[in-house]
Amino acid sequence: MPIPPLPTLMIEPLVRTALLEDLGRAGDVTTDAVVPAEMRAATALVARKAGVVAGLDLALMAFRLMDPAIETKVERPDGSRLAPGDVIAAVAGPMRGILSAERVALNFLCHLSGVATATAALVEAVRGHKARITCTRKTMPGLRAVQKHAVRLGGGANHRFGLDDAVLIKDNHVAAAGGITQAIARARTGVGHLVKIEVEVDTLAQLEEALGAGIDAVLLDNMGPDTLRRAVAMVGGRAVTEASGGITLETAPAVAASGVDLISAGWLTHSAPALDIGLDWRG
Amino acid sequence: MPIPPLPTLMIEPLVRTALLEDLGRAGDVTTDAVVPAEMRAATALVARKAGVVAGLDLALMAFRLMDPAIETKVERPDGSRLAPGDVIAAVAGPMRGILSAERVALNFLCHLSGVATATAALVEAVRGHKARITCTRKTMPGLRAVQKHAVRLGGGANHRFGLDDAVLIKDNHVAAAGGITQAIARARTGVGHLVKIEVEVDTLAQLEEALGAGIDAVLLDNMGPDTLRRAVAMVGGRAVTEASGGITLETAPAVAASGVDLISAGWLTHSAPALDIGLDWRG
Amino acid sequence: MPIPPLPTLMIEPLVRTALLEDLGRAGDVTTDAVVPAEMRAATALVARKAGVVAGLDLALMAFRLMDPAIETKVERPDGSRLAPGDVIAAVAGPMRGILSAERVALNFLCHLSGVATATAALVEAVRGHKARITCTRKTMPGLRAVQKHAVRLGGGANHRFGLDDAVLIKDNHVAAAGGITQAIARARTGVGHLVKIEVEVDTLAQLEEALGAGIDAVLLDNMGPDTLRRAVAMVGGRAVTEASGGITLETAPAVAASGVDLISAGWLTHSAPALDIGLDWRG
Amino acid sequence: MPIPPLPTLMIEPLVRTALLEDLGRAGDVTTDAVVPAEMRAATALVARKAGVVAGLDLALMAFRLMDPAIETKVERPDGSRLAPGDVIAAVAGPMRGILSAERVALNFLCHLSGVATATAALVEAVRGHKARITCTRKTMPGLRAVQKHAVRLGGGANHRFGLDDAVLIKDNHVAAAGGITQAIARARTGVGHLVKIEVEVDTLAQLEEALGAGIDAVLLDNMGPDTLRRAVAMVGGRAVTEASGGITLETAPAVAASGVDLISAGWLTHSAPALDIGLDWRG
Amino acid sequence: MPIPPLPTLMIEPLVRTALLEDLGRAGDVTTDAVVPAEMRAATALVARKAGVVAGLDLALMAFRLMDPAIETKVERPDGSRLAPGDVIAAVAGPMRGILSAERVALNFLCHLSGVATATAALVEAVRGHKARITCTRKTMPGLRAVQKHAVRLGGGANHRFGLDDAVLIKDNHVAAAGGITQAIARARTGVGHLVKIEVEVDTLAQLEEALGAGIDAVLLDNMGPDTLRRAVAMVGGRAVTEASGGITLETAPAVAASGVDLISAGWLTHSAPALDIGLDWRG
Amino acid sequence: MPIPPLPTLMIEPLVRTALLEDLGRAGDVTTDAVVPAEMRAATALVARKAGVVAGLDLALMAFRLMDPAIETKVERPDGSRLAPGDVIAAVAGPMRGILSAERVALNFLCHLSGVATATAALVEAVRGHKARITCTRKTMPGLRAVQKHAVRLGGGANHRFGLDDAVLIKDNHVAAAGGITQAIARARTGVGHLVKIEVEVDTLAQLEEALGAGIDAVLLDNMGPDTLRRAVAMVGGRAVTEASGGITLETAPAVAASGVDLISAGWLTHSAPALDIGLDWRG
Repeated sequence: MPIPPLPTLMIEPLVRTALLEDLGRAGDVTTDAVVPAEMRAATALVARKAGVVAGLDLALMAFRLMDPAIETKVERPDGSRLAPGDVIAAVAGPMRGILSAERVALNFLCHLSGVATATAALVEAVRGHKARITCTRKTMPGLRAVQKHAVRLGGGANHRFGLDDAVLIKDNHVAAAGGITQAIARARTGVGHLVKIEVEVDTLAQLEEALGAGIDAVLLDNMGPDTLRRAVAMVGGRAVTEASGGITLETAPAVAASGVDLISAGWLTHSAPALDIGLDWRG
Repeated sequence: MPIPPLPTLMIEPLVRTALLEDLGRAGDVTTDAVVPAEMRAATALVARKAGVVAGLDLALMAFRLMDPAIETKVERPDGSRLAPGDVIAAVAGPMRGILSAERVALNFLCHLSGVATATAALVEAVRGHKARITCTRKTMPGLRAVQKHAVRLGGGANHRFGLDDAVLIKDNHVAAAGGITQAIARARTGVGHLVKIEVEVDTLAQLEEALGAGIDAVLLDNMGPDTLRRAVAMVGGRAVTEASGGITLETAPAVAASGVDLISAGWLTHSAPALDIGLDWRG
Repeated sequence: MPIPPLPTLMIEPLVRTALLEDLGRAGDVTTDAVVPAEMRAATALVARKAGVVAGLDLALMAFRLMDPAIETKVERPDGSRLAPGDVIAAVAGPMRGILSAERVALNFLCHLSGVATATAALVEAVRGHKARITCTRKTMPGLRAVQKHAVRLGGGANHRFGLDDAVLIKDNHVAAAGGITQAIARARTGVGHLVKIEVEVDTLAQLEEALGAGIDAVLLDNMGPDTLRRAVAMVGGRAVTEASGGITLETAPAVAASGVDLISAGWLTHSAPALDIGLDWRG
Repeated sequence: MPIPPLPTLMIEPLVRTALLEDLGRAGDVTTDAVVPAEMRAATALVARKAGVVAGLDLALMAFRLMDPAIETKVERPDGSRLAPGDVIAAVAGPMRGILSAERVALNFLCHLSGVATATAALVEAVRGHKARITCTRKTMPGLRAVQKHAVRLGGGANHRFGLDDAVLIKDNHVAAAGGITQAIARARTGVGHLVKIEVEVDTLAQLEEALGAGIDAVLLDNMGPDTLRRAVAMVGGRAVTEASGGITLETAPAVAASGVDLISAGWLTHSAPALDIGLDWRG
Repeated sequence: MPIPPLPTLMIEPLVRTALLEDLGRAGDVTTDAVVPAEMRAATALVARKAGVVAGLDLALMAFRLMDPAIETKVERPDGSRLAPGDVIAAVAGPMRGILSAERVALNFLCHLSGVATATAALVEAVRGHKARITCTRKTMPGLRAVQKHAVRLGGGANHRFGLDDAVLIKDNHVAAAGGITQAIARARTGVGHLVKIEVEVDTLAQLEEALGAGIDAVLLDNMGPDTLRRAVAMVGGRAVTEASGGITLETAPAVAASGVDLISAGWLTHSAPALDIGLDWRG
Repeated sequence: MPIPPLPTLMIEPLVRTALLEDLGRAGDVTTDAVVPAEMRAATALVARKAGVVAGLDLALMAFRLMDPAIETKVERPDGSRLAPGDVIAAVAGPMRGILSAERVALNFLCHLSGVATATAALVEAVRGHKARITCTRKTMPGLRAVQKHAVRLGGGANHRFGLDDAVLIKDNHVAAAGGITQAIARARTGVGHLVKIEVEVDTLAQLEEALGAGIDAVLLDNMGPDTLRRAVAMVGGRAVTEASGGITLETAPAVAASGVDLISAGWLTHSAPALDIGLDWRG
């Protein structure tokens, strides 16, 4: 099934905040002074580069919240592949509102499409392997839900959404608990039956200990392809395997070839460049 | 004078929102289950790559809001140049709080330092020329004030903060008004005496018209170095000149050599990669 | 062009807050107990005194937010001149909602029309002179944007909207910087190219120093008409001149006769009496 | 007992909102650029005119929220009588924070002291009579609680705080119910035992009907002194009597001489001029 | 007249908060993954036990806020008596939205109907006596307005809505004031003319003192039926009498037989069990 | 390890909201009028019935937010077993603040301790069996995080915190997907690797199908003890087994004897009676 949109309830506060951040205390002084109230315009959101659409719901909501008389028509919905020149959506109505909302709409659309496009590139890089691409909690403050949605639209999968929806035991947790086995035992008694437990390991010895204690997933941190291959073999399907640590478009194929289930990359959300999308004026 | 910090009043809501976004409804289930309440830790925020610090106030506030017993000590304040391995700040206190706030703190610090570092690189690229580097309104929704602060910390200057603090007449405004002269005239009567007026021009003919109408600044959009040089000569100091449009680290020197006052670049805020900073555990 | 309305996005939170402030925890207990749900009413907002309309958008929104079944029709939009008895707008629909929203609607309308009316009176007082009337930052907490909009509707111009959209160097800033020249120099390097710089001066000597340093505007504080005239001559068009300091309807003509560009008055927003407007019941 | 302060919990959100409204997205650009971080100042809030202090808690909180290092010392607390030149409070500490918070602090203090001063003047006007002065729901949107507190500090009493804490039956309610008796009967069954019922009457015939139905208070609307005297006699202590309708400092004594219990005046909160208070710099 | 609904303005923030609390950062992952977007459903809110409806506005708003395409039709409005199997409302439209909002809708409806049902049971228990049933301030944090509305729907009356809308002098207030008489005197001078005064008394001696000082209502705390009867006789109609303190369905009739005006019970809002209501799927 | 407290960041907004809900627009008018500002009091939160403490952090925060001069000392922290008369915490300081915050503090403490106490009773009822007690999403709107925390304090475990942190496939999801197998398959591809999948089944045939498709947990809905026992045997450790559906203190032992891993009960959060705790005044 296609990726469902996020509920309006979840995204509307973000769009309102962004519009108010731009309007400040006096609104769009340029447009108000220069553009007559009765002028209308027909415009289109158009891709200038190839990529994957994300954030279109937020972008179109920005126009409609600025002026409910603005009409929007989706041509290529969230998740669509874009070639340069592709029309993503038509936006028509009072010119003032279109001009005043344009930048906020594009800020959401270009950034989130950038995240989706980066994800799609990494997905493509591991094509032919079983590995799925996943994001991390290295997200832009306040934008996590929409960034993670963009990752899904790009063909990726989601990791934890926060500190509360899964256990991820890292090296400092292990140190505090006095060992991997103890940390896992404490976690298991401390959380509910629907919370999965993942452990980060740096070595195959740690992996062995973690598997012995019983885990749902293992994060294989900064391992080379050979070590990863041995790790996957050791796990033998007893847990989901996730490779992580500085994985790029160039190194991803070799990582994927190790047979890991997941490859996670923080840069999908913290460093993906914006996708170049513009608003073209048609009349 | 050094760049002053943003008031606590302005940044605290952002940090609270980011922490609550990460804590969700159950908090840090891993740390709560695995780390004893009485454990303490001494840690340091350490640069893994060279760059410029920004967002340190937000990062340290994240730790202190999570647990007021956490103590922080700044070693290299916002705006400092970083070499790999440099300690930015010490963070010590209850281990649980440090672990729970770590990711949010780093999300602010790595992203904003990334913006400052990108700005500093572009500033460096035009060294020896008069041109200052400036940002745009192509910012991450909700983070404009802190991103623009990061640009200043990187040595850049700020452009408009929103639609309301200056006039920027673009091509569609001109079309709506029926000409550059008319648009400028309307703007002048429509705004207060402390609002500057900038006009975007694509050609030297447009520039001539804008100068005739009287403006504070002109945005020279997508002009090559030669055209820019002629534009700067035409302006002759009557307005601030800003070059814009796809300017990169590579093309910036030639643009700056044209003698423009400002070079603006949207990618400083919409596409700057995060700076790699980590939290090292010392005991 | 007529003064454009503020975006709905900006005013709706104010109206919601005001309605909830009045409804408290139990709502309109009188109307709920006394007026049957099915009763309808036709009413009109009517001027009891002469003045200028402002805040009509907020007033009508109050009725519609209380009950979307209430219909409103504008007869004299924001900025209109009112004679006693003039109908400003018709409000019709469920009687309960009209009664419950009446006071909040009038609180916005009477206060903001009071600000617009006071502004119009001061504008009228200087008619024939070039001086424009402007407001200050002496506003009601939380209502700055709508008060400043009311000043524009009354024929005035806006000064700074906040501490961030222009530089205004006052005596204490000068003292801190060690002189007017130093203060202006610091300001120029500290702010972006679209931020204007105004300096407050008490004497012609200070004015001379400020002009030498280069400024966009000068606030001539508490000067008598003669001194103002000499100041205007000294400036000679090199900066916008603003007279300020206890200027009333009576003293404004003499001040304006000095040739200043602007006359600012805090009382437009901090002490303007409400305009008497009522809700008449027609059936 | 002295009027207790409003809880910090209630006023802090107002002060934060006002400060953020002034700081905008870039903060105090003048002070940040011009005043060195290490400079300190000693200042005092000083009355320029006679009046009554109100809003001092909010004003001092503005300074401390801007910078917790600012120290404040109350000299004349809320409710104090002021002569010109009187020091209300001392404010000392980092100069930047004092300058940045000054306007917001004064906006609260001057407006609310204006309300208290107007109230005190009306209280004084009816001295020697039993009548107490009270306010209405004609308040500045968002500021009702603090305005009503200012009325108390000026020696006045409070009327309803909103639509929900007492019944006030007006002419339209009577018309909807089909008569005063019916309206009162419905109200009595519709509200709890701790909710008082007041009825607005325009004539002595209406008053008679209202008294027959049993009420806690009666609002005698727009009656002249003679009619008021007869109304008070008719009531004979069976209800609290409130005179209302365009009562000024000049007309209040005659109204009070009628023997009414209360005189209400909307202008105390919707049209009271600000009290002139300034921040003096002592070093 | 029927109990009017609470204004949409008052309840919408509660419903939005509850939905967002349930949706978290990823929304309804089950429904999004499993249910096709185009599926529609027809459902009904059906009583599984007998009771009284309350909270229906909030429940139906939850569905519509989740998806405006969901249509709702009220069959048994707030305040209706329910038999097991009764349909309260029909809810039809996109299946995803119905599933995603179901739990929040039921949480409001079942809890508030539970409050109304408990109230109705206590009202029934005292049928034939004059005593009305009333609630207290022992409410669920954040839900006071809707709980008190549910009490009214169940046939009860409302007590104070907060600390600010009436005086209730309890034992500690009396101790602080140095006696009942002093406490009442202070209260009378301290509050406005529309604020009633109630005093809590434990003994008939205290009651005598309170009546002597003049009060609007008296809370007879933890008195047995005989003492209550003597108290009612002592009061003789001079004040509203309220019996309070551990009154249950079993003890209420005897308490009511004493002739008190009101019986208050905290458990109506702090301990009422939810009413069993479900969402039936019809196709 | 003991159950860690929820972060202050998470609970402070709830406490502020509850206090402001009670203070309204005028604050505690009784205490302000009757109790002198300088009076101090020493009080204690004391159990009147046996139970388990929960919500103490929120209760004590209510006092401190009302007046930071109030000092609190915990005697029996969250999770402690209480006998009647046990002191939970001491609260001392300015009497006004203690009186004004008392009801809000007790509303949190009594309700959440009621939830913990109900949970502990159900835990006790199944002692000797492996079954753990768990809650549901049938929570009070806005209070889910603190109610779920109270369940943990009572010895229970947590189920899903919302729609987003685990998959729970119910009958309508199955119907929409065209079968249990299809529903599970869709869920598995639709969610991340850290999201567990639970399926609700009504019959052993459905259970068999679900087990065949592979699941993490199964909700055995409304099955009698015999069927449950057979279900547990069928599962054979391949999934977590959860019994649900009208389970009470009386029926829980038989359900637990079936060998299920979990027993869930909605009434722990939607219908638990408040625990009787009072504030005793010691001087």
